[in-house]
Amino acid sequence: MNVSFIGIGSMGSGMAANLVRAGHTVTVYNRTKEKVEPLVALGAKAAKSLADACRGDVVFTMLANDDALKSVVYGDNGLLAQLAKGAIHISSSTISVDLSERLTSDHAVAGQRFIAAPVMGRPDMAAAGKLFVLAAGEPSAIDAAIPLFSTIGQRTFIVSKSPKAANLVKLSGNFLIASMIESLGEAMALVSKGGIDKREYLDILTSTVFNAPVYKTYGALIADQKFEPAGFAASLGQKDIRLALAAAEELNVPLPLANLVRDRFLTLRAHGGDKLDWSAIGGLAAKDAGGG
Amino acid sequence: MNVSFIGIGSMGSGMAANLVRAGHTVTVYNRTKEKVEPLVALGAKAAKSLADACRGDVVFTMLANDDALKSVVYGDNGLLAQLAKGAIHISSSTISVDLSERLTSDHAVAGQRFIAAPVMGRPDMAAAGKLFVLAAGEPSAIDAAIPLFSTIGQRTFIVSKSPKAANLVKLSGNFLIASMIESLGEAMALVSKGGIDKREYLDILTSTVFNAPVYKTYGALIADQKFEPAGFAASLGQKDIRLALAAAEELNVPLPLANLVRDRFLTLRAHGGDKLDWSAIGGLAAKDAGGG
Amino acid sequence: MNVSFIGIGSMGSGMAANLVRAGHTVTVYNRTKEKVEPLVALGAKAAKSLADACRGDVVFTMLANDDALKSVVYGDNGLLAQLAKGAIHISSSTISVDLSERLTSDHAVAGQRFIAAPVMGRPDMAAAGKLFVLAAGEPSAIDAAIPLFSTIGQRTFIVSKSPKAANLVKLSGNFLIASMIESLGEAMALVSKGGIDKREYLDILTSTVFNAPVYKTYGALIADQKFEPAGFAASLGQKDIRLALAAAEELNVPLPLANLVRDRFLTLRAHGGDKLDWSAIGGLAAKDAGGG
Amino acid sequence: MNVSFIGIGSMGSGMAANLVRAGHTVTVYNRTKEKVEPLVALGAKAAKSLADACRGDVVFTMLANDDALKSVVYGDNGLLAQLAKGAIHISSSTISVDLSERLTSDHAVAGQRFIAAPVMGRPDMAAAGKLFVLAAGEPSAIDAAIPLFSTIGQRTFIVSKSPKAANLVKLSGNFLIASMIESLGEAMALVSKGGIDKREYLDILTSTVFNAPVYKTYGALIADQKFEPAGFAASLGQKDIRLALAAAEELNVPLPLANLVRDRFLTLRAHGGDKLDWSAIGGLAAKDAGGG
Repeated sequence: MNVSFIGIGSMGSGMAANLVRAGHTVTVYNRTKEKVEPLVALGAKAAKSLADACRGDVVFTMLANDDALKSVVYGDNGLLAQLAKGAIHISSSTISVDLSERLTSDHAVAGQRFIAAPVMGRPDMAAAGKLFVLAAGEPSAIDAAIPLFSTIGQRTFIVSKSPKAANLVKLSGNFLIASMIESLGEAMALVSKGGIDKREYLDILTSTVFNAPVYKTYGALIADQKFEPAGFAASLGQKDIRLALAAAEELNVPLPLANLVRDRFLTLRAHGGDKLDWSAIGGLAAKDAGGG
Repeated sequence: MNVSFIGIGSMGSGMAANLVRAGHTVTVYNRTKEKVEPLVALGAKAAKSLADACRGDVVFTMLANDDALKSVVYGDNGLLAQLAKGAIHISSSTISVDLSERLTSDHAVAGQRFIAAPVMGRPDMAAAGKLFVLAAGEPSAIDAAIPLFSTIGQRTFIVSKSPKAANLVKLSGNFLIASMIESLGEAMALVSKGGIDKREYLDILTSTVFNAPVYKTYGALIADQKFEPAGFAASLGQKDIRLALAAAEELNVPLPLANLVRDRFLTLRAHGGDKLDWSAIGGLAAKDAGGG
Repeated sequence: MNVSFIGIGSMGSGMAANLVRAGHTVTVYNRTKEKVEPLVALGAKAAKSLADACRGDVVFTMLANDDALKSVVYGDNGLLAQLAKGAIHISSSTISVDLSERLTSDHAVAGQRFIAAPVMGRPDMAAAGKLFVLAAGEPSAIDAAIPLFSTIGQRTFIVSKSPKAANLVKLSGNFLIASMIESLGEAMALVSKGGIDKREYLDILTSTVFNAPVYKTYGALIADQKFEPAGFAASLGQKDIRLALAAAEELNVPLPLANLVRDRFLTLRAHGGDKLDWSAIGGLAAKDAGGG
Repeated sequence: MNVSFIGIGSMGSGMAANLVRAGHTVTVYNRTKEKVEPLVALGAKAAKSLADACRGDVVFTMLANDDALKSVVYGDNGLLAQLAKGAIHISSSTISVDLSERLTSDHAVAGQRFIAAPVMGRPDMAAAGKLFVLAAGEPSAIDAAIPLFSTIGQRTFIVSKSPKAANLVKLSGNFLIASMIESLGEAMALVSKGGIDKREYLDILTSTVFNAPVYKTYGALIADQKFEPAGFAASLGQKDIRLALAAAEELNVPLPLANLVRDRFLTLRAHGGDKLDWSAIGGLAAKDAGGG
């Protein structure tokens, strides 16, 4: 297939590389041009312009936020104006439910197809083609995209016919991770002030009820207060919680735990923690308790 | 060893049975007498009185709460008055940090030894000898008790020399489970109102980031709103959160997420949910959102 | 002065009437035309179009929300395009800090002047010219507008040179009222379940420490659960809390109490309470407690 | 009447002095003996012992907390053992609902009468006989005590026949004040970070909607961050919130705002703020926001 890939960051570079390796004709585009060079070395074609990246049968976008995605979709050289009829835009960015809904309808009006396919996994999983893909969109479009998803991920979940459902699942998943971080932060603040070693405590937890990698990984970061370098920056975590809360507000769903997590991010940022790993919110309970 | 076991409920019966099977001389005592019969059939001796149950080298207690434990410890026929010097009281109940501290000092004054050894695991794990034991107390006492712990559990964690530390770890562990329940409850309220099937959502979660039995088990209960019969009653869950908050208050540790969970239990009880499984608090977010 | 007034709702009608009575030449404009008739009877001139309402020295806008205000400011017939250089736009609507900032800069670019002058008070106070005016903007503009503020209000507070500061004060004031409602709701849920009559309780409060009209008014609504008809609709209250939280997020200020109030509004709306008075959130604590 | 007064602290000294001045025969008792001297100079009689203070028709107690009160009620020389049949114990301390209930029943068994009569007001109001008295108990006892209440206070509210109701009202009142402090703390953190002067902001609030002394007093303390010397210590405020939450838990009433306030007190204490005025919790929102 003729595939374009827009957004060659830490996630996108791995995803695009796997598409190249799978034998697809891949055109890559990034605002900062040097980022595409390794992919070109691998056999990808560098798009000369954004418009040039809109000529494929399928265009992936993997960008930081709503604004970044809007900047490549709207405008004379953007996807909406340039994409051929019937072509598919696969949005893998973690974006708002609102924007996903808007893109669904705008692409439909333009005779194009839209799939929301946010992914779960860190950059190393992207590089290894081991992501989890949460795909939602019209069945015919999904069918066409399945081989691509199988290339970038270890498993694809077909969430719904409505693209925004996949975005909602992705946002709620990040809310769940942030909630787990908060719970570990509180528990460790408590036992630590009670004289228990945090690492030994974590070992008990993860050897028994909470025997899952996600508890081990984040638990260790919190126990050691090792929030740099960021695997996933607090500013991005905050964005996702904000988008989850916005989606919930639209649906009239109160989420008190999401509010709590939101406040943690604000406190972190107010104290300069923007670039720390998002697990740094797990250190705030200990600070409130006079420690940390 | 000459072992007594006080408190033959759903957990204690399995624990005592495994002690009998391992060849110990086991004397059993329970307020409701019939409960001990299956153990007697297995080879245990039924204590004629509480005092009669205090003659062993080691006495386990496995009771519902602080008051129940105090009723067998204090008083003329209780453990404090009747236990031999040097004998060991192993408290496996989930009790307050305060009471654990008080028992530590009262037993010391009486020349007896005290171990806090709360356990993690459901009744089926108790029956199978597969509990996790969180033990804390003086090393010499712990050493003496290790063979017993190996009989009732699959693994023993030596938490501290200070018994109350084991109680704190146990309470914080239940807080973490309750927090996970709350987070799943909110996430499911959100995605469900967004049109996504809760069972399919849970499948995505537990096939990816949250691949742990505890998410699968509680997630399924919440998705299906199946809160009866109770595996662990809401009233017991509430008690544990109350004890965690009391310990935290003593240590000046604010726990906003524990507060949230506490309120969920109160709401549940105010609506007659006392005897539901404690995962029923995971259904309240959906109720607030107008569903459920 | 040549004054236009855009937005003849329950607040605007009283404000505009007082401007007419004070002898100003007042042109009035409203999307629903009939609303202006009583003012025309009083001596106001009905604008033929939105553009026609932009010819004065000063244009007041008093509209429901950001979108309504944007619809009269932007576009070919809107204030930005039509207002004369040096003319003053006085925005009395309760709008977002963001929009206020944007209007400040857009009007400056267009050579026009912008004052944010949200008001405190109910429709009866607007009709009586007894509002409190929170004004912020460039001193020269404020000086020119002072006589108008004196006409519509009993007192004007000059908050800042920066218009958005007045909006922030207004939003925070509504947050304080909503917080008071929440606190009364919780207190009444508690004492009422404790067997105390809510009206007698309120009498004690307002005869002692909380001797303020705002406690009396809202306390009575909560005690009597009389949330219809709405003096100020829950949907508007929710909007203001959302705007306060948005402003706080921009400034990295966590507001846990505002989050709590926000959730109350969502719960209310999820149960169809959109059109109730905003004090209806004060009835939710009792509901959680199984009463109400 | 023959009146005894136990507990001559900052509140009790003023209350007892007014009873002396009104012509009653007043016997006074305090653990620290010197505290009674000014009252003796005024005409009171110093009790030689606790038992000696139990001989009147009426005994007031005004003590710091449950434990202090229990120490003068229970035991061989305490009120229960020493008070004559038909004598009245008036408890003006801010104590738990639980203890009030227990005293009601214990005094009844002993043939004595019990009134809960907590008061509202600061030491200066106690000295001036201007307290508000919240009285609850059997009507005949209340009738007998009314002249005494009129002596110590400006107004007496008869809350209920059940003494504990008065304690609940008192606790809920302190919860309301603490909630107001929290709301002001958040609002000031917000507007202050938005560039608005806190004192000017407070002036706007208290000149308009929040025209009540309680807003002025606490608002000024928060705006100026002047939390020493304590008018009412944070440790006492925390106690009252704990008692309010305990009463609410007993009644299954979730109080999320009380939880928030509780956490603020814990954070304050964890940072050494135990002896600050309780309004110091109003400074914590600004700290979370990176200021303060």
